[in-house]
Amino acid sequence: MKQGTFTEVTRQRGVYDITEPVAGVVRAAGVETGLCHVFIHHTSASLMICENADPAVLRDMERFMARLVPDGDPMFEHVAEGPDDMPAHVRSVLTQTGLSIPITAGRLALGVWQGIFLWEHRARGSERRITVTVAG
Amino acid sequence: MKQGTFTEVTRQRGVYDITEPVAGVVRAAGVETGLCHVFIHHTSASLMICENADPAVLRDMERFMARLVPDGDPMFEHVAEGPDDMPAHVRSVLTQTGLSIPITAGRLALGVWQGIFLWEHRARGSERRITVTVAG
Amino acid sequence: MKQGTFTEVTRQRGVYDITEPVAGVVRAAGVETGLCHVFIHHTSASLMICENADPAVLRDMERFMARLVPDGDPMFEHVAEGPDDMPAHVRSVLTQTGLSIPITAGRLALGVWQGIFLWEHRARGSERRITVTVAG
Repeated sequence: MKQGTFTEVTRQRGVYDITEPVAGVVRAAGVETGLCHVFIHHTSASLMICENADPAVLRDMERFMARLVPDGDPMFEHVAEGPDDMPAHVRSVLTQTGLSIPITAGRLALGVWQGIFLWEHRARGSERRITVTVAG
Repeated sequence: MKQGTFTEVTRQRGVYDITEPVAGVVRAAGVETGLCHVFIHHTSASLMICENADPAVLRDMERFMARLVPDGDPMFEHVAEGPDDMPAHVRSVLTQTGLSIPITAGRLALGVWQGIFLWEHRARGSERRITVTVAG
Repeated sequence: MKQGTFTEVTRQRGVYDITEPVAGVVRAAGVETGLCHVFIHHTSASLMICENADPAVLRDMERFMARLVPDGDPMFEHVAEGPDDMPAHVRSVLTQTGLSIPITAGRLALGVWQGIFLWEHRARGSERRITVTVAG
């Protein structure tokens, strides 16, 4: 197997398209038929495969999560790093820490409307480390 | 690795059992110990592993999702394809686009009560393409 | 590929750290660069990668789920095994039945704050079977 890592610097809460750096690791690996695994080494940012054409989809996704897991919810006990701390962990658990995507004919076999996104859940952002593993 | 694809035609929102076509790809691959990965190439239908014995579980799953992510929610900006458009994307992100299942002794090592399901989230259904990758 | 299985006996609803038994299977496999897949053979308990330092995070996670998917919800039709039966299936679908984690330099490449957890969703607990598959 081949592995590559990269860091995405997020400056605020929101969704960041990482399809291209992931696809780059796949191209470099030279695997014809296989699997690509993407992993984020954090518990307050996560991954998702989502619609990649209309930016309003990503804004709606953020709106939905902000309502489902409100910052500053008085129910939360773990508030050491502020009102967005525990919501960031919950949002991560409700989405994905790892994704696997088939490789077909040497390329990521994403659907036409699928992109790979990093979802930063902390208000102020961070440096997020991602490992891509290619098996074939 | 070996890959197979199939298409599931869904006629309306709801849950469709795809355990058998997935198991068929695994049998054909002839892998004794390995992993089976199932991927859906769409962002408005998704996958889940769920209880396979009582159809009421699947109806309750749909009821829960319909309440959690209501169609026509005025919060949503992305409404190009109707009131079920954005909810379909949210439901997909809250469930799975890809699933991995161990292969043991040449067979999918699902638990007794586990089935593999495609969850169609669009009201009118669609043709959904699925890729199964077998590694061993 | 190499596989190992273990059983976790849960005595009540809640979160159980299984990082160490999973890491043990990885060490025994002797893979330098690869992937570790963890699978739970049940539909009323699930897996997650979550913050591993402050036990309050796990209590908050349970509080959040208890409010999102309340026991005894009159909407649910599948109540054969009691008020926590259908909520356990929903909680499982909203989290993970399988997880994949990269292996780097012979070890699970978890982030500093990441642990692997089994989440028991049934009130009285059970015996939960887990399969770990190592590919490299």
